[in-house]
Amino acid sequence: MKISGDLLIGGAGIRGAAEAFSAVNPANGMLMEPSFGGATKEQVEKATALAWEAFPIYKEISLKDRAYFLEAIAERILELGDTLILRALDETGLARGRLEGERDRTVGQLQLFANEVREGNFQELRFDPADADRKPAAKPDLRLRNIALGPVAVFGASNFPLAFSVAGGDTASALAAGCPVIVKAHSAHPGTSALVGSAIVDAVKACGFPPGTFALLYDSGYEVGQALVADHQIRAVGFTGSRRGGTALMKIASERKQPIPVYAEMSSINPVILYPNALRHRGAEIGHSFASSLMLGAGQFCTNPGLVIAIDDTGLDAFIATATSALVKSHAQTMLSASICEAYYKGVAKLTASSSVSQVAAGMGGTPRQAPAFLFETTAAAFLAEPSLQDEVFGASGLVVRCQDEAELKNVIGSLEGQLTIALHLDEGDVQAASKMIPTLELLAGRLLVNGFGTGVEVSPAMVHGGPYPATSDGRSTSVGTLAIYRFLRPVSYQDFPMELLPEPLRQL
Amino acid sequence: MKISGDLLIGGAGIRGAAEAFSAVNPANGMLMEPSFGGATKEQVEKATALAWEAFPIYKEISLKDRAYFLEAIAERILELGDTLILRALDETGLARGRLEGERDRTVGQLQLFANEVREGNFQELRFDPADADRKPAAKPDLRLRNIALGPVAVFGASNFPLAFSVAGGDTASALAAGCPVIVKAHSAHPGTSALVGSAIVDAVKACGFPPGTFALLYDSGYEVGQALVADHQIRAVGFTGSRRGGTALMKIASERKQPIPVYAEMSSINPVILYPNALRHRGAEIGHSFASSLMLGAGQFCTNPGLVIAIDDTGLDAFIATATSALVKSHAQTMLSASICEAYYKGVAKLTASSSVSQVAAGMGGTPRQAPAFLFETTAAAFLAEPSLQDEVFGASGLVVRCQDEAELKNVIGSLEGQLTIALHLDEGDVQAASKMIPTLELLAGRLLVNGFGTGVEVSPAMVHGGPYPATSDGRSTSVGTLAIYRFLRPVSYQDFPMELLPEPLRQL
Repeated sequence: MKISGDLLIGGAGIRGAAEAFSAVNPANGMLMEPSFGGATKEQVEKATALAWEAFPIYKEISLKDRAYFLEAIAERILELGDTLILRALDETGLARGRLEGERDRTVGQLQLFANEVREGNFQELRFDPADADRKPAAKPDLRLRNIALGPVAVFGASNFPLAFSVAGGDTASALAAGCPVIVKAHSAHPGTSALVGSAIVDAVKACGFPPGTFALLYDSGYEVGQALVADHQIRAVGFTGSRRGGTALMKIASERKQPIPVYAEMSSINPVILYPNALRHRGAEIGHSFASSLMLGAGQFCTNPGLVIAIDDTGLDAFIATATSALVKSHAQTMLSASICEAYYKGVAKLTASSSVSQVAAGMGGTPRQAPAFLFETTAAAFLAEPSLQDEVFGASGLVVRCQDEAELKNVIGSLEGQLTIALHLDEGDVQAASKMIPTLELLAGRLLVNGFGTGVEVSPAMVHGGPYPATSDGRSTSVGTLAIYRFLRPVSYQDFPMELLPEPLRQL
Repeated sequence: MKISGDLLIGGAGIRGAAEAFSAVNPANGMLMEPSFGGATKEQVEKATALAWEAFPIYKEISLKDRAYFLEAIAERILELGDTLILRALDETGLARGRLEGERDRTVGQLQLFANEVREGNFQELRFDPADADRKPAAKPDLRLRNIALGPVAVFGASNFPLAFSVAGGDTASALAAGCPVIVKAHSAHPGTSALVGSAIVDAVKACGFPPGTFALLYDSGYEVGQALVADHQIRAVGFTGSRRGGTALMKIASERKQPIPVYAEMSSINPVILYPNALRHRGAEIGHSFASSLMLGAGQFCTNPGLVIAIDDTGLDAFIATATSALVKSHAQTMLSASICEAYYKGVAKLTASSSVSQVAAGMGGTPRQAPAFLFETTAAAFLAEPSLQDEVFGASGLVVRCQDEAELKNVIGSLEGQLTIALHLDEGDVQAASKMIPTLELLAGRLLVNGFGTGVEVSPAMVHGGPYPATSDGRSTSVGTLAIYRFLRPVSYQDFPMELLPEPLRQL
């Protein structure tokens, strides 16, 4: 399948009339064909107008047909076969196994939401029957359902070119909820985006849905994204990216005439708390798994374990020694883009330059595109004194905070910002100490896990991929798992409606 | 029971050390005993610190005990007997029957949430069992529950001195969710607030809950409210009041280091759409019920029908004639406060001064404290040209918009801001026309109703008392009915937790 570089608006390819750009192979800096025309303000407005037009129709399409649509998208993504994988390989520098796994995850996610739609619980149907005899006043007939918020703007994430991009979690959950979707493709993988975008457009056509149900826009800068979030016809936003980007969108959304919800997943250093007994018995083993998790995919996961907190002891030394030996043997890995790699080096340089931080280990190699892993350590006192040590360094860089005692450990935890995940490593002897900490940890993260690492996010009903600000813009929600559909819904109550005027799902006696 | 005028912090009466104020009898302007000391910044901080301390304990109190607590509050409010009613009468100018009804509603609301807590569905418990054999990777054990957000600041509303004040809907739903509550009493009914506050404090003591579970603060100005919303230890806000007040709190909350949700119910003119057949057959009858709804409680309801939209016809003339004859016979009613009355007169004067609006009817009498009802009319063209005609005039003032045809009617509806309710009056012959309008109306309001008026908000599972901005700050929620509890919760996921470390509700195999 040939990639045209056209925007996808109203089911058709339209050349973007703003500045064009090309994908860059992050491994070698080579430009790739074709060029992608950025969307103009008018083209953005065309897309939002069509989405608005599609909305009342799409939101009332039967659950069966909506579920089938999600499955049709999944099928078409699979049909893209190696064309998709090869383009994604070239655009992201990620390994084939990872991309194939991510494709399966993307497809699985769509199928999961198809089931969720078919089941229909998300509609939250509620019936309060009338009671004419109630005193002092008759009770009306009240019925409630959730309806879709309206067209949703989704921003493709650089680090998940499939699972959190054009047909990723935000798109799947918004479409499942009954919202048309306009995706702003991430400029680092426009070709991958184009292929997946075509799959969705094909599915829209095959289902006979309104052409405004889906659109795909390109932009090498920020204008298209900003215009989308400011557009009156956009009613919610899904974003995964930097804190700067996320907070900028939050600001635009809150300053609109009608503010809208922004679901931005922004930054997290995913603290790992190592308890004394676990360290004493398995310090080396945990150090080994930590190093693997830290370096997975060049550390480019939202759930990458960037911070380790532990009480200073021989077990911690064993942990650090094993992690170090894994790191020093590791090779630099291609990062998703030169700019991400540059930001990584800057973050590492800031840690290196800090007088209170010492470098423990560094991986081998390093170019402006391929980055080695790093491990640093500092003291609790220094960590508490320097809040910027909590800044996320996106990539395979970790910081160990050595605490003198449980009180210091508690203080360090108390100083943490909101997180996506917090991992605890513990043995039976640590349960009591950990147990006291859980109420604090629950307030700091969306997911707590024991004897594991946050990387590897299960797509399932009990998953929360979210967390208190600044991990996300809205800690009341998740962007992974079936609960994600609720982000794009709001309840409406219908009082004393004649049967024929009620929305179909509420027509029961 | 004697009212001391003290703040209630940590279960004890503490004299507020900031500027003191007294309640004013709105009927005659007389000051009432005692004086209420406003809270200082330090006293606000004392209250939030205690709430934060109480939070981890209160949130994990068994559902049974939490439900009992809500019922204990209800009981104690009833035990206040006529002391409460008499003080509320003097502070609000509302009628005895109304206040007694509102007390029953308040008590019923607490009991409803007690049942909701006992039932426990709001915890949203989810279990994804582990599967060690899953390929390519083992599946972890995942469990999810909703936890309380943290201490909540509740602002008492002037127009519901019981049902949306100290122990009103926001407090009941926040306490039900597991959140400690700090109430900023409305300065128009501090004595009523003190009595209900004591009832809650008694219940906290009787249950042996942490004293920070509840606090009551006074302030004649804005400082206490602003300090509460800005305080790091406050994690959500419930507010009912003006748009200016609500948006000011939204701004403070969004500019915090950690933004928090603000659930502000702000303004709504609750459009009433009259369809031709209904008008033709029952124009006079509808006009009569409209006038009753408009004048109920001096029009001081969030759901007061402030706007009527209809196609110009003899039916509309009959509607206006009957409404007029009810209005001109009506007497001025005492408003909740002199400032509310002043604002009402200002709103009425703006309409009177508008060259495109004509006065149809006015009630009898009028003083700076007692306001008559008013009815105005305008054309669709004028309404579309002058957006300020949509500004809420809080009180018994209504505006009829005469449309030439269905197209104009549609345009007028299309121009509406977000609303709490929209009412449709229709006969069988109107169903088809109305049916086409429902998808638009659903996007404009939280509750749609047929052949009735929005006043009289049922407290039940299928109620939505909310709506798109600017009716509320967050159209994804309701402040009345059992769904309201979800405003104060967020999901947390627990992965691979040993049984003994899991929160109690998740401990099942």
